[in-house]
Amino acid sequence: MRMLYVIGIGAGDPDQVTVQAVKAMREVEVFFVIGKGAEKQELLDVRATILREHATQPHRIVEIADPPRDRDPVDYRRAVADWHEARSLLLEQAFVETEGVGGILVWGDPALYDSTLRLVERVHARGVCTFDYTVIPGITSIQALAARHRQVLHRIGEPLYITTGRKLREEGLRHPATVVMLDADCAFTDLCGDDIHIWWAAYLGMPDEVLIEGPLRKVEDEIVDLRTRLRAEKGWIMDIYLLRRG
Amino acid sequence: MRMLYVIGIGAGDPDQVTVQAVKAMREVEVFFVIGKGAEKQELLDVRATILREHATQPHRIVEIADPPRDRDPVDYRRAVADWHEARSLLLEQAFVETEGVGGILVWGDPALYDSTLRLVERVHARGVCTFDYTVIPGITSIQALAARHRQVLHRIGEPLYITTGRKLREEGLRHPATVVMLDADCAFTDLCGDDIHIWWAAYLGMPDEVLIEGPLRKVEDEIVDLRTRLRAEKGWIMDIYLLRRG
Repeated sequence: MRMLYVIGIGAGDPDQVTVQAVKAMREVEVFFVIGKGAEKQELLDVRATILREHATQPHRIVEIADPPRDRDPVDYRRAVADWHEARSLLLEQAFVETEGVGGILVWGDPALYDSTLRLVERVHARGVCTFDYTVIPGITSIQALAARHRQVLHRIGEPLYITTGRKLREEGLRHPATVVMLDADCAFTDLCGDDIHIWWAAYLGMPDEVLIEGPLRKVEDEIVDLRTRLRAEKGWIMDIYLLRRG
Repeated sequence: MRMLYVIGIGAGDPDQVTVQAVKAMREVEVFFVIGKGAEKQELLDVRATILREHATQPHRIVEIADPPRDRDPVDYRRAVADWHEARSLLLEQAFVETEGVGGILVWGDPALYDSTLRLVERVHARGVCTFDYTVIPGITSIQALAARHRQVLHRIGEPLYITTGRKLREEGLRHPATVVMLDADCAFTDLCGDDIHIWWAAYLGMPDEVLIEGPLRKVEDEIVDLRTRLRAEKGWIMDIYLLRRG
């Protein structure tokens, strides 16, 4: 393999790929799909649509299943490290068997809450397979959230804090504008204060997209109820929200 | 005017527009250019290239000069408020005189360190000119920075703080991963500690793009010198950086 493109393909709307991503997809001879099995069918369908629409040249798709993972290890850190190493060896093996131009499609942007670049860097650093790689940014769900709510994320000149549900629960709301990703447990219900506003969305860019916005204390129950119902109906949910004080 | 598109067009690379942005640009009959005169010629050239390439339908361009601004007012807040009001009235006037579909192109993403959406919302809320508007996200310089350095912005599961040079100077480095925008004075030189790493870039996506990466204490002088020289040579600079501790 001469070149690998790590391509951000946006948050769920097939039209949110960039011209740069389209051009890269058209050069790729082998697309690597990592961790097959963990993704939801609707996301797989969106990705298939993107490939069908843009990767019109002959290409192969190589699926790389994740190695088995010890979910209850004695040494947790060691188990995670071993698992990442096993993943990178599987990816290296696939790279070694590939000639020409490779590609990996990443939801959102490879620079935010995604491990593909760390995995690729690990293979690259080992040097067993010699290749160059290029990263192509994509629209994140943060940007899709702001666009659908037609909001600037922060107030004039203010900072923006991007965090996870777990961290929000640990730290509380410490910044004037906070975006929360990867929150499976509605950490916003734990926050104190009557001056918090929330802009929430689920399934951004997809046909089932839903938006709720309002004072947190007024709309939190509505969000929790809708979230519970949608997750039960569809079997999965992907959501994100912005919080601002004052 | 029936519909207005506020379209993010990326950070400087014409290929970083999305398919969604291209489709919107093709519908636009009148592009509004706000604050004509403040932008650098090279950025104007990139925007002209994007329009030439994608907006192939007949369209007009309406330039809206910024109203004069009192740079040394007695009441600073009042002067800023008056200026924003004057700007929004000029935009409203332009909207009133327009039929069909309007468009405003925004560098990066309209949701981050840009005032276009606040201006449009102000005109929309006044209700003198009735229209609907749609926001289309774009690739930010943060994402272009991460892509060119092939970096995930934060460590696994960690938060990301996005701030300005002014705020960094006030607050110091308080987060494990911080992106700094709008820093005209190299605020990174004020930071304490030997464990800070910097990923810096200027003119991202443009022919003059430069990247420097390394331990802050080792590369800060190089960045300051290069920045000073480039700004003197070209007459302007636009840069951004990521800082991480440890």
